Amino acid sequence: MTEFFTVVTPDDAKVALFEHVGPLGESERLPTQDTLDRVTAGEVRSPQALPAFPRSTMDGYAVQAADTFGASDALPAYLNVVGEVRMGEAAEVEVGKGEAAIVHTGGMMPSGADAVVIVENTQPIGDGDEIEVRRSVAVGQHVLQVGEDIETGDVIIPSGYRLRPQDVGGLLALGITEVEVARQPRVAIFATGDEVVPPHVSTGPGQIRDINSYTLAGQTVRAGGVPLLQGILPDDFDTLMARTREALAVADVLVVSAGSSVSVRDMTARVFESLGEPGVLVHGVAVKPGHPTILGVAAGKPLIGLPGNPVSAMIVYDLFGVPTLYRLQGATSVPRRGVVWAKLARNVASESGREDYVAARLVERDGELWAEPVFGKSNLIFTLVNADGVLKVPLNANGLEAGVLVEVRLF
Amino acid sequence: MTEFFTVVTPDDAKVALFEHVGPLGESERLPTQDTLDRVTAGEVRSPQALPAFPRSTMDGYAVQAADTFGASDALPAYLNVVGEVRMGEAAEVEVGKGEAAIVHTGGMMPSGADAVVIVENTQPIGDGDEIEVRRSVAVGQHVLQVGEDIETGDVIIPSGYRLRPQDVGGLLALGITEVEVARQPRVAIFATGDEVVPPHVSTGPGQIRDINSYTLAGQTVRAGGVPLLQGILPDDFDTLMARTREALAVADVLVVSAGSSVSVRDMTARVFESLGEPGVLVHGVAVKPGHPTILGVAAGKPLIGLPGNPVSAMIVYDLFGVPTLYRLQGATSVPRRGVVWAKLARNVASESGREDYVAARLVERDGELWAEPVFGKSNLIFTLVNADGVLKVPLNANGLEAGVLVEVRLF
Repeated sequence: MTEFFTVVTPDDAKVALFEHVGPLGESERLPTQDTLDRVTAGEVRSPQALPAFPRSTMDGYAVQAADTFGASDALPAYLNVVGEVRMGEAAEVEVGKGEAAIVHTGGMMPSGADAVVIVENTQPIGDGDEIEVRRSVAVGQHVLQVGEDIETGDVIIPSGYRLRPQDVGGLLALGITEVEVARQPRVAIFATGDEVVPPHVSTGPGQIRDINSYTLAGQTVRAGGVPLLQGILPDDFDTLMARTREALAVADVLVVSAGSSVSVRDMTARVFESLGEPGVLVHGVAVKPGHPTILGVAAGKPLIGLPGNPVSAMIVYDLFGVPTLYRLQGATSVPRRGVVWAKLARNVASESGREDYVAARLVERDGELWAEPVFGKSNLIFTLVNADGVLKVPLNANGLEAGVLVEVRLF
Repeated sequence: MTEFFTVVTPDDAKVALFEHVGPLGESERLPTQDTLDRVTAGEVRSPQALPAFPRSTMDGYAVQAADTFGASDALPAYLNVVGEVRMGEAAEVEVGKGEAAIVHTGGMMPSGADAVVIVENTQPIGDGDEIEVRRSVAVGQHVLQVGEDIETGDVIIPSGYRLRPQDVGGLLALGITEVEVARQPRVAIFATGDEVVPPHVSTGPGQIRDINSYTLAGQTVRAGGVPLLQGILPDDFDTLMARTREALAVADVLVVSAGSSVSVRDMTARVFESLGEPGVLVHGVAVKPGHPTILGVAAGKPLIGLPGNPVSAMIVYDLFGVPTLYRLQGATSVPRRGVVWAKLARNVASESGREDYVAARLVERDGELWAEPVFGKSNLIFTLVNADGVLKVPLNANGLEAGVLVEVRLF
């Protein structure tokens, strides 16, 4: 009944796993507008300069700056209005010395002009054929030059980058209507345990409902993966072996949330060993909760054995599963969204040599963010339901004192 | 060409809008596992206690605590092993005085027993019919009592709550397989401007591609709305009037990103006035960028007029559009995910009486998060592409000094 394993730090565990796990290296070409939250499969360079034509950044008059030098309320400059540049059209008017043309924000600069006087600093005279200019402008003022934002050939989006709404917008601004993105990893998720029944079933004595399949599916979706729920398996080696082998033929990742008892976790390890080389890489991680985590690889596919406790399962999957999904997609980093720093609202005990994660609620006080630990005896799922995330007690801290800045992983 | 409007603070603008905008009040019943990121349309109470039966939290032996009092390495207690409680089954064995039963983590406590001795503190004797117990346990130790997590009738999820993976798990743990959630608001999004062309079109002189339709669609999806892209309209009052009226018949929200020039924005305001009562509520907000924002309501439906500049449009939509979508879903708060606090990496200038948002990159240094402003002359979309979000310079700050804590809204 005793479990034997060598415990490694969470960082070392991830290194051990990632030594054998690289990007899937498969991609698909999608319409840019359908690529939100997908990861680029190559860098994207700009096919053009932006702006593509010199633009006014204000409503006003395109002029030759030299004509305005020294202009003031007391001594305005007088310019002839020779036309107007309409939005969306080429500037056909030309601005010579002593001349001005009406321009709108975002409109094209007419040739000859090198600056814009904003409308507030002008005054029409008579029927509007002439204006007074009451402030001088410098050459280039209120004008965007060609390529000032983007030059042709600039890398605008790197490879391995998860696309946000503004990135989709930036690509479309350059006329890039298709993007090569990484294929989404398929994740086979198994719940195991003789005591586990599906959520729609009335539980008998000693039985609990499957939660992990659904929480892990949600985390998988958020990390860009496709969950393939495999249901609940009994604690039987042959069944587990056959079903996981089958699932691994179509999936890119295998996730098994084992029952809570030691013998059952041990069975998961034996299954991982039998699925292929190199088999189990890590059995036991210096993290609480999550100590009995199993990480392995078979035929290049990551195998993740999670504790059965739903809080532990979510925390460990966030620590190892989520980064694995990003790695399979070739992402260079896990999106920052999801980690905040806050001040610890009260002391938290921990043991040195172990990373602790404590469910925490975030509260704003005096313009600062505070993390209040949520303690729950049983660490059941409602600890996380009542929390905004989990705060991290670092490996070599002997507990944390109230007031220190802590990292909170939002859930 | 001059724009006249009364400028209000962002908070006042939101209050003015929300006075006329309430929850849609429509809901649908969905399988719980399909409710990720949806907002509950009523509080959810637990139909049962959790745990539903007393459970062991460790691998070990269920005992009567009194039998272990005073037990130590030197003077162990001796107990007869009368059976084993199998996972997923009712505990049929009974534990009397001087007796113990094998239990697994999560297994049901047998009747008669009131505590669990962990396996590490025991030693089997002979063929395993007897054990030595080397530590005493208190009544209730390593045991979860019925209802310790949740009592029958407890509110487990409030109304107006956006469901996360753990919330979905918590509901399923209680056998709640269907949930009533708010209908997703439909958002009609228009881009306007004679100079705006679709992304797939080669731009001629003076033309730019539509970005806002797609960035706003992405923001809409993230806030739980359904974007209905209405394409690009020319700067023509009658067309805009006809098309927005048509869209508003099927949509719950109208969003118009106006061209950049004053005359065009003014047209948006006139359209909003003509769509119904009360019409325009706010025309001009003390925020940079985003000053010419227009907020209105027609027949209870929010109307949002955004600046044409893509950065301004995203920031203003995040400020007013996103909270509006949550409000329509009846959400009690905008999810915390998306706002972090960081130290400002360098001085930022601003004017008092105006809320400024400055694109910023987040950088971790010495275990702390720093916000580095990203300045871009033209404030084109690539300012936000190169940023993690925008930092807020509060209304009455005269700029901010390096080192102060700032709020960063992630994008």
